[in-house]
Formats: sequence, C-alpha cells, structure tokens
Amino acid sequence: MQRTLVRDVGEHVGEVVTVQGFAQTVRDQKRVQFIVLRDHTGMVQVVIERSEEYARFNELVANLARESAVQVTGLVVADPHIRLGGLEIRLQDLQVVSLADPVLPIDLSERTTTMIDKRLDWRFLDLRRPESLAIFQVQTTAEHAMREFWLSEGFIEIHTPKLMGVPSESGAELFELAYFGETAYLAQSPQFYKQMAMAAGFDRVFEIGPAFRADPSFTPRHATEFTSVDVEMSWIESHEDVMALEERWLQYVLQAVQAKHGEQVRELLGAEIRVPTLPFPRFTMAQAQEILRREGHVPPPGSKEGDLDPQAERVLSDYVRREYDHEFVFVTDYSFAVRPFYHMRYGDRPDTTKSFDLLWKGVEITTGAQREHRYEVLVEQAQEKGLNLEPLQFYLNFFRYGCPPHGGYGFGLVRMLMLMLNQDSIREVTFIHRGPTRLMP
Amino acid sequence: MQRTLVRDVGEHVGEVVTVQGFAQTVRDQKRVQFIVLRDHTGMVQVVIERSEEYARFNELVANLARESAVQVTGLVVADPHIRLGGLEIRLQDLQVVSLADPVLPIDLSERTTTMIDKRLDWRFLDLRRPESLAIFQVQTTAEHAMREFWLSEGFIEIHTPKLMGVPSESGAELFELAYFGETAYLAQSPQFYKQMAMAAGFDRVFEIGPAFRADPSFTPRHATEFTSVDVEMSWIESHEDVMALEERWLQYVLQAVQAKHGEQVRELLGAEIRVPTLPFPRFTMAQAQEILRREGHVPPPGSKEGDLDPQAERVLSDYVRREYDHEFVFVTDYSFAVRPFYHMRYGDRPDTTKSFDLLWKGVEITTGAQREHRYEVLVEQAQEKGLNLEPLQFYLNFFRYGCPPHGGYGFGLVRMLMLMLNQDSIREVTFIHRGPTRLMP
Repeated sequence: MQRTLVRDVGEHVGEVVTVQGFAQTVRDQKRVQFIVLRDHTGMVQVVIERSEEYARFNELVANLARESAVQVTGLVVADPHIRLGGLEIRLQDLQVVSLADPVLPIDLSERTTTMIDKRLDWRFLDLRRPESLAIFQVQTTAEHAMREFWLSEGFIEIHTPKLMGVPSESGAELFELAYFGETAYLAQSPQFYKQMAMAAGFDRVFEIGPAFRADPSFTPRHATEFTSVDVEMSWIESHEDVMALEERWLQYVLQAVQAKHGEQVRELLGAEIRVPTLPFPRFTMAQAQEILRREGHVPPPGSKEGDLDPQAERVLSDYVRREYDHEFVFVTDYSFAVRPFYHMRYGDRPDTTKSFDLLWKGVEITTGAQREHRYEVLVEQAQEKGLNLEPLQFYLNFFRYGCPPHGGYGFGLVRMLMLMLNQDSIREVTFIHRGPTRLMP
Repeated sequence: MQRTLVRDVGEHVGEVVTVQGFAQTVRDQKRVQFIVLRDHTGMVQVVIERSEEYARFNELVANLARESAVQVTGLVVADPHIRLGGLEIRLQDLQVVSLADPVLPIDLSERTTTMIDKRLDWRFLDLRRPESLAIFQVQTTAEHAMREFWLSEGFIEIHTPKLMGVPSESGAELFELAYFGETAYLAQSPQFYKQMAMAAGFDRVFEIGPAFRADPSFTPRHATEFTSVDVEMSWIESHEDVMALEERWLQYVLQAVQAKHGEQVRELLGAEIRVPTLPFPRFTMAQAQEILRREGHVPPPGSKEGDLDPQAERVLSDYVRREYDHEFVFVTDYSFAVRPFYHMRYGDRPDTTKSFDLLWKGVEITTGAQREHRYEVLVEQAQEKGLNLEPLQFYLNFFRYGCPPHGGYGFGLVRMLMLMLNQDSIREVTFIHRGPTRLMP
C-alpha cells in the first residue's frame, strides 16, 4: 500500500489513492455520507454513497466518532463545486484503525483563552488543530535554518550538561536534587559551558537545549523549563561583532520561514512574517533613554538606572517601528549594576558593559555581551558583585591558561515563535508547558 | 583587521595575514624564535628573527607560556623544507591576548587511560587536543546530516519536557526533585512524549536532547546524563518500516561524515568510516540464537530467554562482519518478557514483540519497535507487566481518541561517536561527562 499525503491528492485525479489521517468531521446524510479526512498536510473530503454495495462502510461511518484514525482508499475526482480544494475521494475501502471515544474532552474547533488550562490538560488533542501543527512546522524550519547558518559560519554544536555541581549563574530560582549523596542543580543556562568551549578552542559554538528556572511566575512569558538557544564566538573585537552575527542570522532564519510558511502562517494564524533589513537599528542606553524621555515615557518607581523596564521596551520598539519601519532594535551599554559579573566593562567607563539586548516587537528576545576573559578583572568583577569565589573557581580556571576574547548571546525560542506567530502566550508555542502548577501531561 | 583561518594561510603566500589561536609550542633559539600557532582549523609555524628591530617581540616570545592565546600578523612564505604544510609566517606583529600560567595542570601532548579522571577535571584543556576537537566537529556534521534527512522526509522537530510529574518508563534509576510542593522526575527518555506527538497527528517527529538515569555504573558506556536521539513515525505497517527508515538514515549520516571528515578521522583518530550498504543484515531472535549456537556461544548463567547478552552481541556482529562484510545487524522479535509494556506483540505469538535492536560493531546502539496503539491491548500489557495504571493514565489517554499505528527508535549519540571514531569510552566523546562521582566541571 502506497500512502498519498493529502496535499498531493490533487496530483492523482482519476486514480485510486490511499490516504490516512483523522476524521475531522463526519456527516451522515440520507443518500450520501461525508468524512473530512485530515492529515499533517491538509484536509480532503471523502464521499461514500449509501447503497447495498457499500452497506458495510455505511455502517462504519454511521458509528464513526470524530477524530478517529482512519485509512481511506478511493477514486480522486475533481469537482470545482467542492469547497475543499475542488477535490473529493469516492470511497472504495475504509479502515477504522483507531476509533475515538464519542465525546472529546475538549472542543477542537473552539478556542478561547479561558480554557487554556483545559486545553493544556489535553494537549495531544489541542495540538491536532492545524494552527498548532503549523506552529511546530515553523519551529522545525526555523531551527534548521538557524543551524544551517551556524554551520556555514564554522560553528560547532555542543550539548552541555544540565546537571551541575554548582549553581549556574545566580543562586536564585534554582532546582536542586539529591545526586549520589551530593546535591546537583539543574542548569539555568549553558553560560559557563559555552564559555568553556571558547577556552577549549572550539572557536564558535551553538546549542539548542532545555534550561530550567524554579520561577513561581504565572505570566504568559514564563515557564519553569524552556528551550534556550545559545551562541558563543571567539576572537571578537567587541559585542558589536556578536550583534552583527545575530542580525544576519535572524534575517536568514526569517527568510527561510517566510519562504516556506509565509502563506500558511498568514491564513491559519493571521501573522505576517517580515524579513528584516540590515543593519538593525541600534541605540546605546543613553540614546534609548533620551528617546524615551522625548516619547514621554516615565519609568515606574523602583526602575533601575541603566536598564529598561518592560513598558520602556514597548515604547522604544513603537518608536523604531514608526521612525525606522523596523521590528527589531538593539540596545547596548547596559549598566554593570544590572548585568551579570562576567559581562565586559568599557576600560574608560567601568559602570557600563559591552552588552546588548535585542528587542522584537517590544519584547526582549536576546541578552548578549562580550565576556570578560581576563582572569584578574573577572575575579574583581565577581567580588564586586559580592559572589563567593570558591564555587566559581572551576569557571574562573577557564581563563588561566590562555583564553581568546569572546562573546555571545542567549535567545528564547518560544518567545521568538510567540512574537513571530502573533500568539499571546508561550504556552501556545511550547510542545508541553511546564509551570509552577503544571507537571502534566 | 581581517582574520585568516590557519587552513587558509596557504592561499595567501606573499601576503601579510593575521592569524589567531593558541601557542601550541614555543621554541626560543639563539638566532630565531618559533611559535606553532593552533586554531580550530590547523597549525602553522610562525618565525621571529632575533634582532634589534624585533627586540620587543623577542622578549614577548621568550616569556610566552604554551597555550597562551595570541594574535600574529606576518608575511606568508612558502618553503618546501618546512614540515608543517610547507609554509611559515614571518612575524611582523604579535599580541599576547591571554597569557597562560606557565605550568599546565595536564600535559596536552600525552594521553594515557590512567589519567582520564585528571583529564576530565581539566576538560577545557583536554578538549584542546586536535583529536578531541575532531570528535565534536564530526558530531556537528553527523547531527546536521541526521536532521537534513529527517526534514527531507517530513519530520517535525520537538522539544519534550525533561521535568515530568510521573516516572517516564520504569521507577528504577530515577532522579527526583522538589517542585513547588510536588515531586518531579527527570525524564529517562522522551518515549511517552514522542508517542504523544503521534496521537497529536504530528505524523513523524524527532528530538535530540538530554536524558537522565540515576545509574550507579562506572563502565565506559554509562553516564547519568546523555544525549538521546529519538524518532517516532505514524502509519507504519510494522517495525520493518522503522528499520527501513533507520538504515537509510544511518547510511546518509555516515556518508556525510565520511565525505567531510574521512581523512581527518583517519589521520587523527586512526578510524576508518565505512558507509554501509542497504539493506542491513537482519535476523529474528530465533535465527540469531541459531547462529550463536553454531558459533559456539554459550549464554552466561542468568541470561534471559529471547534476549541477547553483550557477548552474544559481539559474536553475532563478528559473524555478520565475516559472512556479510557488514558492520551493522538488526535483530528482531525480542521476547515480550525483556521489552517494555508498550512494544506491540504479534497477534499469533503474544510472547514475541514487533521490536528490534540495531547492533554496530558488537554494541547495541538502537532499540526500536512498533508501539501498541490499541487502548485495551495496551492496558492489558501494562497490567501483565504488573504496572500501576493510575500514574500511567495520562499516557494511556493518548490512545482513546484515535491514534494511528506508529513506531520509532531511540539511538545513543555518544555510543555512535565512540564506535565510529574508535574511542574506548563515551567519556572521550561527551563534551562534559556526568557519572555517579562526577558533577564537575
């Protein structure tokens, strides 16, 4: 038996094909019956005449619950009156491979934000909606394009350990577990290890893998487990080299997604994928704050100097969209006070780091920086942050035996998907969400 | 400043180039000084004449510790007498970007198995050996080829959660952690979730990601955290469809690695990469045991019926290499007693599963099977294995609302690299190893 994918049925008009998928709808009428069959490539109408000859199939269809898995063999007929692609399959054989329970726990046609928790409980059904499937098809294309770009630039793929003997960055929001009589921590990021790859002479590395934060937040942008995209590169002159790579990378990725899914995404998700022009607009923190002042943004009480609050990020992005017709904006030169100890500072401005954030449509999707690779300076910066050096010594050692200057960025995969596909929560674009009260399915 | 990679220096004879990397060796002679500079693409000799004019550089080189990170600018000269590629760079400028401590904690030129623990303690230095780097360059090429193949076959990439509310397969060797007042478990495999993707209609999926086993073993093949390669596909007729896909996939991957790294791997690691012919030899368990009897293999006491012990795997692989000139062999039809509850059984032979292992060079690298997708049968099989159904209910639900027949395989990335590259331990081919007494670096 040769399976025909639904998207290819149109190439077989006048032929008998076999299609396999789910019974999206079943209509049992007096003289004919219809099944709309859905596979991962589309939907097609199947028609079954009611007759003596087809009695066996007529009975199967009469009892066929929606979402059952079926295999249909039949003749492909073109008919411009048929709404679904102008095609139908006249059934000759039907196999109900897996009959669904007649009552589905969630309605796959309906979609309201109030029921997101219920939808997540039954995520495998929720994911059957073509909108959901499209999200993960886009993810697949986007990740592959990311890697294609990196490989063409000489990057090495690494898999860093998620079990660590010491906390990865801060001691906050850390999962810990018993580990053969010791304590292990789940990695919050591959930061230390991607820098280790620089000390190892790997020159340029990337990783796409899970990261963990014991974050009690329930916001649409937070999860306790998420897929982190990480890049690190050696022999840079400043963070500008990292930004120049990232913008070319994003342009390549969005180009690939637009080419393959532009139409699908527009139709199913109402999102328009724009390929950004280069270079992205960039502002120093001082310039950004001057713009924000002019735009009338007042930082909320408790805002940190040399940083941007979420509302400021939105105002700045709106400004850039208006003035530069651009969805992206780099902000550089964050204050050392709001950055981790390993970000490099300017020699002549020790309160300012060679760091950047990338905002897309008003949301931060990247934090990056040149890293401090000079052992003595790094130790000083850690002490300035009040860190205990002893657990950090394994990391500090990376810089004692010759380490090239380097920098990199971390990038949130699901934030990108959420913004790209106009979704209102990362839960929609995560295969299975993990939050403080969600460990299932 | 335009960086020239060492492998490209030969294209610039007669020109001035800038190279960046580590000082592999430093020789300070009476009339000249030499540095062998190593980057991730190769090594090149740098020569510095001792003279008034170069006095500043002469002093830098005299104090240059091995493995320091340096930037060299100089004239490229071709000279057939120079062993290292017939080229040298006559230094015009030198920057010691990061001076190494004069005494390295491990000797990078030496390599003995007795010091593997010390080497792992200083893994970032150990990885500077070109042999180590080659391993991760091969890994990069292999993974990309895997994904290229999958994408060309319509697979979707997924990231399944590593935090689970219930144990993933068995209750044994499980890491658990406190999770907001509940208990979470680290995933031992993405098994349940890749099957969920089938119930969700994703049709075909893959994942390359971490898996965790609280395994107290110290063998060269065990780790508490490892990179698992997982595949699942719908609408198969039997496990044979899965095997047919896997062998084409492996052929594609090995072809890609051989084309890009065949020579490098032969020179640095003494390994010969053979692209396998299709189809791979396959034997049922009964046939395999008949061969083993003929080969004089006596199963060790305590061996399970319908399974192969490690020595049997080696004997069978030797037989296949001798008789079929093939490095791979599929063994099918394992006994239900030695397989997990979700492997499908033959209708007429309920003690036998539609499952397979793939052996490469005498070592198991894959376990695969058609899965049982019929709810009632699956429940029966779980009960037969004595499992508690309650925590499994979320998984069993996948099969209640229409689920296509499906199957897949799990594949060990580091085992593949170990076997492909003639390494004697997975520790050599893992970026950072995790074992019962190893949580650092």
